[in-house]
Amino acid sequence: MPEDVESSSFEMDWDRESRTGVSEAVLCGHKSTAQIEAIVAAAQVARRRLLLTRLTAEAFAALGAGTRALLDYEAESGTAVLGERLAVNPIPGIGIVAAGTSDMPVAMEAARSVAFHGYDAPIVADVGVAGLWRLMRRVKAIRQFDVVIAVAGMEGALFSVLAGLLDAPVVAVPTSVGYGVSFGGRSALHAALASCAPGLVVVNIDNGFGAASAAIKMLRVGRRRCTCLVPTVG
Amino acid sequence: MPEDVESSSFEMDWDRESRTGVSEAVLCGHKSTAQIEAIVAAAQVARRRLLLTRLTAEAFAALGAGTRALLDYEAESGTAVLGERLAVNPIPGIGIVAAGTSDMPVAMEAARSVAFHGYDAPIVADVGVAGLWRLMRRVKAIRQFDVVIAVAGMEGALFSVLAGLLDAPVVAVPTSVGYGVSFGGRSALHAALASCAPGLVVVNIDNGFGAASAAIKMLRVGRRRCTCLVPTVG
Amino acid sequence: MPEDVESSSFEMDWDRESRTGVSEAVLCGHKSTAQIEAIVAAAQVARRRLLLTRLTAEAFAALGAGTRALLDYEAESGTAVLGERLAVNPIPGIGIVAAGTSDMPVAMEAARSVAFHGYDAPIVADVGVAGLWRLMRRVKAIRQFDVVIAVAGMEGALFSVLAGLLDAPVVAVPTSVGYGVSFGGRSALHAALASCAPGLVVVNIDNGFGAASAAIKMLRVGRRRCTCLVPTVG
Amino acid sequence: MPEDVESSSFEMDWDRESRTGVSEAVLCGHKSTAQIEAIVAAAQVARRRLLLTRLTAEAFAALGAGTRALLDYEAESGTAVLGERLAVNPIPGIGIVAAGTSDMPVAMEAARSVAFHGYDAPIVADVGVAGLWRLMRRVKAIRQFDVVIAVAGMEGALFSVLAGLLDAPVVAVPTSVGYGVSFGGRSALHAALASCAPGLVVVNIDNGFGAASAAIKMLRVGRRRCTCLVPTVG
Amino acid sequence: MPEDVESSSFEMDWDRESRTGVSEAVLCGHKSTAQIEAIVAAAQVARRRLLLTRLTAEAFAALGAGTRALLDYEAESGTAVLGERLAVNPIPGIGIVAAGTSDMPVAMEAARSVAFHGYDAPIVADVGVAGLWRLMRRVKAIRQFDVVIAVAGMEGALFSVLAGLLDAPVVAVPTSVGYGVSFGGRSALHAALASCAPGLVVVNIDNGFGAASAAIKMLRVGRRRCTCLVPTVG
Amino acid sequence: MPEDVESSSFEMDWDRESRTGVSEAVLCGHKSTAQIEAIVAAAQVARRRLLLTRLTAEAFAALGAGTRALLDYEAESGTAVLGERLAVNPIPGIGIVAAGTSDMPVAMEAARSVAFHGYDAPIVADVGVAGLWRLMRRVKAIRQFDVVIAVAGMEGALFSVLAGLLDAPVVAVPTSVGYGVSFGGRSALHAALASCAPGLVVVNIDNGFGAASAAIKMLRVGRRRCTCLVPTVG
Amino acid sequence: MPEDVESSSFEMDWDRESRTGVSEAVLCGHKSTAQIEAIVAAAQVARRRLLLTRLTAEAFAALGAGTRALLDYEAESGTAVLGERLAVNPIPGIGIVAAGTSDMPVAMEAARSVAFHGYDAPIVADVGVAGLWRLMRRVKAIRQFDVVIAVAGMEGALFSVLAGLLDAPVVAVPTSVGYGVSFGGRSALHAALASCAPGLVVVNIDNGFGAASAAIKMLRVGRRRCTCLVPTVG
Amino acid sequence: MPEDVESSSFEMDWDRESRTGVSEAVLCGHKSTAQIEAIVAAAQVARRRLLLTRLTAEAFAALGAGTRALLDYEAESGTAVLGERLAVNPIPGIGIVAAGTSDMPVAMEAARSVAFHGYDAPIVADVGVAGLWRLMRRVKAIRQFDVVIAVAGMEGALFSVLAGLLDAPVVAVPTSVGYGVSFGGRSALHAALASCAPGLVVVNIDNGFGAASAAIKMLRVGRRRCTCLVPTVG
Repeated sequence: MPEDVESSSFEMDWDRESRTGVSEAVLCGHKSTAQIEAIVAAAQVARRRLLLTRLTAEAFAALGAGTRALLDYEAESGTAVLGERLAVNPIPGIGIVAAGTSDMPVAMEAARSVAFHGYDAPIVADVGVAGLWRLMRRVKAIRQFDVVIAVAGMEGALFSVLAGLLDAPVVAVPTSVGYGVSFGGRSALHAALASCAPGLVVVNIDNGFGAASAAIKMLRVGRRRCTCLVPTVG
Repeated sequence: MPEDVESSSFEMDWDRESRTGVSEAVLCGHKSTAQIEAIVAAAQVARRRLLLTRLTAEAFAALGAGTRALLDYEAESGTAVLGERLAVNPIPGIGIVAAGTSDMPVAMEAARSVAFHGYDAPIVADVGVAGLWRLMRRVKAIRQFDVVIAVAGMEGALFSVLAGLLDAPVVAVPTSVGYGVSFGGRSALHAALASCAPGLVVVNIDNGFGAASAAIKMLRVGRRRCTCLVPTVG
Repeated sequence: MPEDVESSSFEMDWDRESRTGVSEAVLCGHKSTAQIEAIVAAAQVARRRLLLTRLTAEAFAALGAGTRALLDYEAESGTAVLGERLAVNPIPGIGIVAAGTSDMPVAMEAARSVAFHGYDAPIVADVGVAGLWRLMRRVKAIRQFDVVIAVAGMEGALFSVLAGLLDAPVVAVPTSVGYGVSFGGRSALHAALASCAPGLVVVNIDNGFGAASAAIKMLRVGRRRCTCLVPTVG
Repeated sequence: MPEDVESSSFEMDWDRESRTGVSEAVLCGHKSTAQIEAIVAAAQVARRRLLLTRLTAEAFAALGAGTRALLDYEAESGTAVLGERLAVNPIPGIGIVAAGTSDMPVAMEAARSVAFHGYDAPIVADVGVAGLWRLMRRVKAIRQFDVVIAVAGMEGALFSVLAGLLDAPVVAVPTSVGYGVSFGGRSALHAALASCAPGLVVVNIDNGFGAASAAIKMLRVGRRRCTCLVPTVG
Repeated sequence: MPEDVESSSFEMDWDRESRTGVSEAVLCGHKSTAQIEAIVAAAQVARRRLLLTRLTAEAFAALGAGTRALLDYEAESGTAVLGERLAVNPIPGIGIVAAGTSDMPVAMEAARSVAFHGYDAPIVADVGVAGLWRLMRRVKAIRQFDVVIAVAGMEGALFSVLAGLLDAPVVAVPTSVGYGVSFGGRSALHAALASCAPGLVVVNIDNGFGAASAAIKMLRVGRRRCTCLVPTVG
Repeated sequence: MPEDVESSSFEMDWDRESRTGVSEAVLCGHKSTAQIEAIVAAAQVARRRLLLTRLTAEAFAALGAGTRALLDYEAESGTAVLGERLAVNPIPGIGIVAAGTSDMPVAMEAARSVAFHGYDAPIVADVGVAGLWRLMRRVKAIRQFDVVIAVAGMEGALFSVLAGLLDAPVVAVPTSVGYGVSFGGRSALHAALASCAPGLVVVNIDNGFGAASAAIKMLRVGRRRCTCLVPTVG
Repeated sequence: MPEDVESSSFEMDWDRESRTGVSEAVLCGHKSTAQIEAIVAAAQVARRRLLLTRLTAEAFAALGAGTRALLDYEAESGTAVLGERLAVNPIPGIGIVAAGTSDMPVAMEAARSVAFHGYDAPIVADVGVAGLWRLMRRVKAIRQFDVVIAVAGMEGALFSVLAGLLDAPVVAVPTSVGYGVSFGGRSALHAALASCAPGLVVVNIDNGFGAASAAIKMLRVGRRRCTCLVPTVG
Repeated sequence: MPEDVESSSFEMDWDRESRTGVSEAVLCGHKSTAQIEAIVAAAQVARRRLLLTRLTAEAFAALGAGTRALLDYEAESGTAVLGERLAVNPIPGIGIVAAGTSDMPVAMEAARSVAFHGYDAPIVADVGVAGLWRLMRRVKAIRQFDVVIAVAGMEGALFSVLAGLLDAPVVAVPTSVGYGVSFGGRSALHAALASCAPGLVVVNIDNGFGAASAAIKMLRVGRRRCTCLVPTVG
């Protein structure tokens, strides 16, 4: 074997946060129990905090008791955190708006990912546009956020309506909620991308973590050059 | 050749109106100049009124002068009518709501198709939901219609918002307006189908004529058993 | 957290019926047991009737005994009703035509949804057009309906044939019955949309509830202005 | 260059007819004028009959006058024949049923391809199922054919209805006629494949020549072992 | 309820065989245990033979013991037969050629369907073209068949090669065998349709029964007018 | 016609900027010459600045001389501006990174859209990752931007590499550059969405204007609460 | 039954190695336990080595104890080998580069397939381009390989970056790792195909065995004419 | 503007050949006349050879006379070469096999690309497998090549058959030749990827240049370590 070829099947990108502003997360969906345990153990040894996503209740239960004891697991979102919680940044900023009850797991993944980086992100739930009044009576509250994460499945009409009402950037997270032509979240995804509402940007289907990463990066934009605001830590 | 096999390449379904309540239209998109002229001539001989759709300005110009003189052609909608106009039914009923300026050709095809059957159908234009106020200040007017045809391309968010506000049935006509993921109208089509707004029904992309046919049929529902209203002729 | 942001993950659109003419239904497919129980409890407290759809036998069995006792559950259609039955409207109107035995669950969802709103909707079953005589000998009966819901999977040829025979509007419900190229119901959906039969409108794959909502709205069209018919309640 | 590698860019499969029962045709759609002329010249030298398909009026006009003079060109079907006509086989057999006027070019390609092999194939035109009576009053005539080629675009409902009425095998040719979801002929193709009508087989979109080849092969099945019928030549 | 609307959810097309030459089969994939049992019982009462397809081992095991006892079940093909076997037609005719071992269940469904109608159909197995010699050394045997059913998944190259070698019509049955881009059988389906081999016709993915129906119909073509051959019964 | 229904086919959303922070643009792709001229005239009357996108050289040439004289047209990007230029904001912020020469029109649309709102956006061109050194030697310069717009077609690998190197948010604009499987820009779009690089967000294919709108909104985030920076006007 | 038609459902292509340079493998995904056992038994009788792929732990456990004892099974890759190991070829050559931990099963299938043919193929793991430094610090090692197999899912950006850095041919194996728009591996596949990096070639999704076969064939190219290198055996 | 951001819209990767073994080519399909002329001028200044692909006759004619005079243009393949021809490498190696006459432009692009790098690549044309004898009588000649490029459209069956007969690696180039389900080359692409023939690798649709690059890289594999063969220059 040529020199310098190593054998471990994973190598954490510990410097990602300093390089890109947000941490790497461990996407557990396609990983074996042994792989997840090895990654947690490595983080423990390296004294690193860690966010795990797409960890189903079954996958969590399959982990060894020792590993499980190290993790703060939340079942609805399928996320787990290794390491202490960060103090929440006192300056508000990110809000999460979810179209329906069925979209809550993805909204929760986003909220947990934001919290992992030391921010708070309230969820405004069940404001689908088929009953427009539900959204309208909360618009004033939603306008207080600096960045908005919008979570919707089915036809994804929430994205256009919301982005047309706000001056904050809106990160659309299409969800796989629905059936028939919406199955798998593609209709909601395409609705978000095809919208002519200004400032609407999109991440992959069900990607609550990705939306959170983007929202955090946006929050820090401008503050880079600002000296009057308490500098963010995350 | 076996007996009873005939040679003409078309046979009009003249009884369609008595059987289904709406007339057959001649979809010109895939037909040759010779075929269109033959069909118009046959209708003329049979003393039948005729609606032609998808007749581009080029295709219309290619017809013989005699044929052109018989037709009431409207270029934006690509429709032509052979025969006299019907008196417009005095009872209002069908309204057409179009999301953007680019959707006007399809909205016009629907309006012309409705008019061909003796009804009036005003167009409420440019009420896309990215500027929600445009729709909201016209909702009261739209609520006066018995049936609403909604015409939208791109992400088709208008369909859900509108159907959630009205008690009239809404016929969605997705249009091929857009680019990228909306190219061809599929995103708008899927948005209409995936919507959870109640009473929303859908026709093929750009099918203004089909929406008009459906709206007319709906208008007549219930009046079948009603003796107090002036019976519609259509 | 900004003011006015609330914490519940659902908010029923109780006024949907007065606003749109049909009630909101609870689509249970992507909801957790806890979410469904909370929604039923809220409706019970608010003294509201409720229709639940896509509630599988497993999901129903997972509900608490108290919740189950409140619900009128029907397994084939996967629907449950909370609250008293409405007296059936004496004026007939909606008929359901199903192509094959395998389409019955969707036809039943439509029938239960119609019944929830106080109408009766008989099912004419197993009239697929590969054996055309089955449909033809029932056409006279089907012509008595004011609105027809057509339910078919596979290639969906029933939609065109039926809509060409009736003057009532036809709401096509493509079903996910089939395999190979029909898998998921897309071929039946496209057949319904691409049909040139007049007055044919379409809802999402397997969406029996949506077809029922549309049919009820159509039934009320025209009766709005009619004083001689018993006013409908729903 | 290794031995035995030759330089011509085409090599006719002259023995295809003896090997497979039907001749090779020259599909002109992607070929240059020079290529088509070279192929015709080679056939002329080899004293072979030749069928060219997908030869548009523009492509035909671009050929040299000498080549054009050799060809029996028919514009609607886009076909050309080099060489003498065959005497038509006295035993009838193949019938072509076309759903709409716009499907005539494909039906004509099939008819010309059948004729090239020495058979007659009458076209029964404009029998789309949205006006079912047009098909029904010709069913008796159609039942006289041994093999039926069905040509339809849009939603392709004709295939199922026809195959359910006949004991002859039905070869479905979906056409690219239509728009929106039927664009390109996929909906008609899928309708033919997903149909549960027995004995229905399918060829590629717009492939009139392929349907003709299949129909001719079917006609000869059984006659292989039969001594009482005049042996077919083709 | 209007008169003449009946309540049973199925109605067998018992005359399909006399009308179309082949029997209706019961596609069990989407049917409930209760529906299958009711259909078998009705056939038993009507003293009809019956072919059931897509009946998995689990679905068969779920049937009542009485029903199971009536059926001749074969697990690999997932088919069951009610009623006596027909004497096999002495004139050979249909051959089945399968590309790989994994295609055997579909080949078996075709063979069982042919046998149900009173014919014999030997299977020539494992002749995929990546090892061309396997096919070539059996070509002489395959040429003895009047009609050939070809069964292949993955890239479906067998269809073109085989159809180019035979003068019998070839019915291609693409199978869902494969992974990645062949997943679901679409690549094999498209390969069959896009082939330029003459006389190749196609049925739906995994549709062994449909191929058998088509092959039987083809076998009878020509024999209709022949008096020297023993008339076929089926 | 019901009261309050107006006749114009367009209605500009003049307040969009005050409501959402960015102006509405006129997407000219599907609009007729007459529609574009009417919109420009209305803006002129209302003394509004206007950005037109997707205005091809042919479409621009078709406008009347008077209209053309009012517009600052740039052909490569297909954009035109009505009204005076804004003074460029002195604080830098947005950078545009384009993968290849063929992506320049979309990069230019983004740059012109940013400039319309009073910002400067330099383009770093031709840094596709197949020659990684081209990107690497410019990374230091790119890191100076607060927000980065990345423009790439074909396989879109630039998006992941770039987002992994920066702490600024990255807005991916997939382009329709490419052929075969990249045709239409879908592969680049999917690559952007499927990337695990943090903080990467996506807009529709070729949507340079949408990316610019989002980037401007991001630039203003945080500055909302900041008092030490010169407040942006845009 | 015609002569020469045999009954076994499989026929191994034992000469494939001498004809094509690589052995046939048994793809177990769609095969029954009985089929797999029969094939292993036949190889045992014929004294042949055999490679089985896509053999899940469940499928392996379902085999008889006798069969299991004959096989060298490796669970992560789902591969099993019958027969002795080959001595590893002393000349290095093939390297495997995997983007993420989740891609290891496919990388292992490739490594085991290479080993089966008597070569060694080290795996360079977890070098996804979102953390470019991981790849860059191993480039020197990777450049020592004569042929590189690259394994990546999600957006597949590794393929372009890697192929742009090496003069060895790169065989891309897209994997089904991912979710949303990457589901099933199509985005990674399209990224590999649409890349403009030179010398990049592609195999089917998850096809580690196919990549190994291609790499081995490439390794032997040129050595065919070379007399100074130890001739390869495989 | 930040320092170090440059203004040119292109930057040639002149070192690509030394880094990857093959030169960069200029894909002209999406480039403007001005862009192409600027690139040729830059190469001329830098005294570099250059290969241009996808340069249509119209695009070539639009170039200035000076630019045209510098280029060796070949119309069928749409390729142009700037700079002197290389002496052809005396060791044979690459062969191109094309399925049909219509595939010649892509085969020619491959041949011209190979020649640009100093190798010869004969084309074996019109060997589609529907007439298998055409391929079989040339197999001996084809077996002399070290690497084979296979070019085929429609159903792409040639790829599997060819790869099953050769021990050389086979690079499949699917072409966009065909219609209906093969439109755009996707069926041929999927057939190549789904094939189980060993050692078959695939490039993008119509990508003759990419196949040539891969073949050249393969040719050099092994020769890297060989001292007895004349070292290749390319």
